Amino acid sequence: MGGEPLFALVTLALSPSTGVEAVDQLYAGLTQCAEQYHVSVAGGDIVSAPNPAITIALIGRAQTRDGAPLLLRRDAARSGDAIAVTGTLGDSAAGLRRLREGANLSDALVRAHLRPVPHVALAAEAARLGITCAIDVSDGLLQDIGHICEMSGVGARIRASSIALSEELRRAYPDEALELACTGGEDYQLVLVGAADRIALLHRENGALTVIGEVVAGDRHVALLDDAGLEMPLEAAGWDHLRAR
Amino acid sequence: MGGEPLFALVTLALSPSTGVEAVDQLYAGLTQCAEQYHVSVAGGDIVSAPNPAITIALIGRAQTRDGAPLLLRRDAARSGDAIAVTGTLGDSAAGLRRLREGANLSDALVRAHLRPVPHVALAAEAARLGITCAIDVSDGLLQDIGHICEMSGVGARIRASSIALSEELRRAYPDEALELACTGGEDYQLVLVGAADRIALLHRENGALTVIGEVVAGDRHVALLDDAGLEMPLEAAGWDHLRAR
Repeated sequence: MGGEPLFALVTLALSPSTGVEAVDQLYAGLTQCAEQYHVSVAGGDIVSAPNPAITIALIGRAQTRDGAPLLLRRDAARSGDAIAVTGTLGDSAAGLRRLREGANLSDALVRAHLRPVPHVALAAEAARLGITCAIDVSDGLLQDIGHICEMSGVGARIRASSIALSEELRRAYPDEALELACTGGEDYQLVLVGAADRIALLHRENGALTVIGEVVAGDRHVALLDDAGLEMPLEAAGWDHLRAR
Repeated sequence: MGGEPLFALVTLALSPSTGVEAVDQLYAGLTQCAEQYHVSVAGGDIVSAPNPAITIALIGRAQTRDGAPLLLRRDAARSGDAIAVTGTLGDSAAGLRRLREGANLSDALVRAHLRPVPHVALAAEAARLGITCAIDVSDGLLQDIGHICEMSGVGARIRASSIALSEELRRAYPDEALELACTGGEDYQLVLVGAADRIALLHRENGALTVIGEVVAGDRHVALLDDAGLEMPLEAAGWDHLRAR
């Protein structure tokens, strides 16, 4: 992460019963998002399949400094690093529930699910400021931080009370807001991991970052802590890529 | 086409019942092919789905001359160009039939289906020699030539008797060999379209090209001609991307 997106290859697996109108609408949404980020839909494929599938490969260019690429990777977390997150979490998972209950795009949570905003410029700015570790929240906050711990060989301590929850989420699902924020996927907020002073600098220059914890040495465990600093039993369930939902 | 492949992004949609061994075998095959062509499997994704789907995005680099990319495109056919094909056609479609009849990799037709050989070096050489139009046979010979006609705004005349058929294909399906060669997909042979002298030069230097017809002005029709020069009724069916098989 941290590069400039340039080209998208779109592969559609469509069932013979898929209507042309649905495909047109899909492409209208794709095109709208691609234009916003100056991405060209440059190719792809269409195949027939019993169930629909959409695969998008995004190709971009890394910024460089002295010839070396400035990128945000999963394997660059170091003990003592601060862990920060953009925006609020859990809104997308809550929006999916609302959608299933019949809500539409007039609902802010539904918009968070159907119109997530990728933090392209902020990721590039983080890379320019010397931050080297990040992931976006697609599987769920704790699981995605777990990916960083796994790849970096470190652990993480996350303060539950620091996780930013939206007013809409608290109102809609007051009893489950924290769980949705910790395990709900597809928020596409950025988790940024780096030296506390660089995270603070990025926050001062760009705003909207919340520090939620820090990287610790030792095993690759992600601990969610309550206000007393005790580990909470909430499981890091999130989205398991191979589990049927 | 005509570039150097560098990186592959592999997205697997797997059902929860898919065995780890099957995925290991799939990756063994992917890795074997990638190594042969010096391609790195650089990333991708895994998701759960009711039916399996494999999407591979291949990223490469074009050769350049005086800063301009040397590429083979679908929209560069000109009236009077020769149409040539590598190898033999129809073997892959016949191999799929044999596979369904219980044959295995000891059968040359099955190998043509399961182990197609991409003509990477030949495509690059064609581009260096100034040929600018090509397609690989994935949908079926006549349909793929139709894609070139569509994109280039030309027609094509193909001599049925010039289409190279393998001994194995003739032996296995004598009555359907020509139809399989014209409409069977996934041979991944190259259709090269260009000035006759350049096609001849490529053939002299690299061999294994068969000239099967020529590009004509006018409507975008692909005509398959018999020995008397009369159009044959064989439909350009091939593989329709959105038709259930």
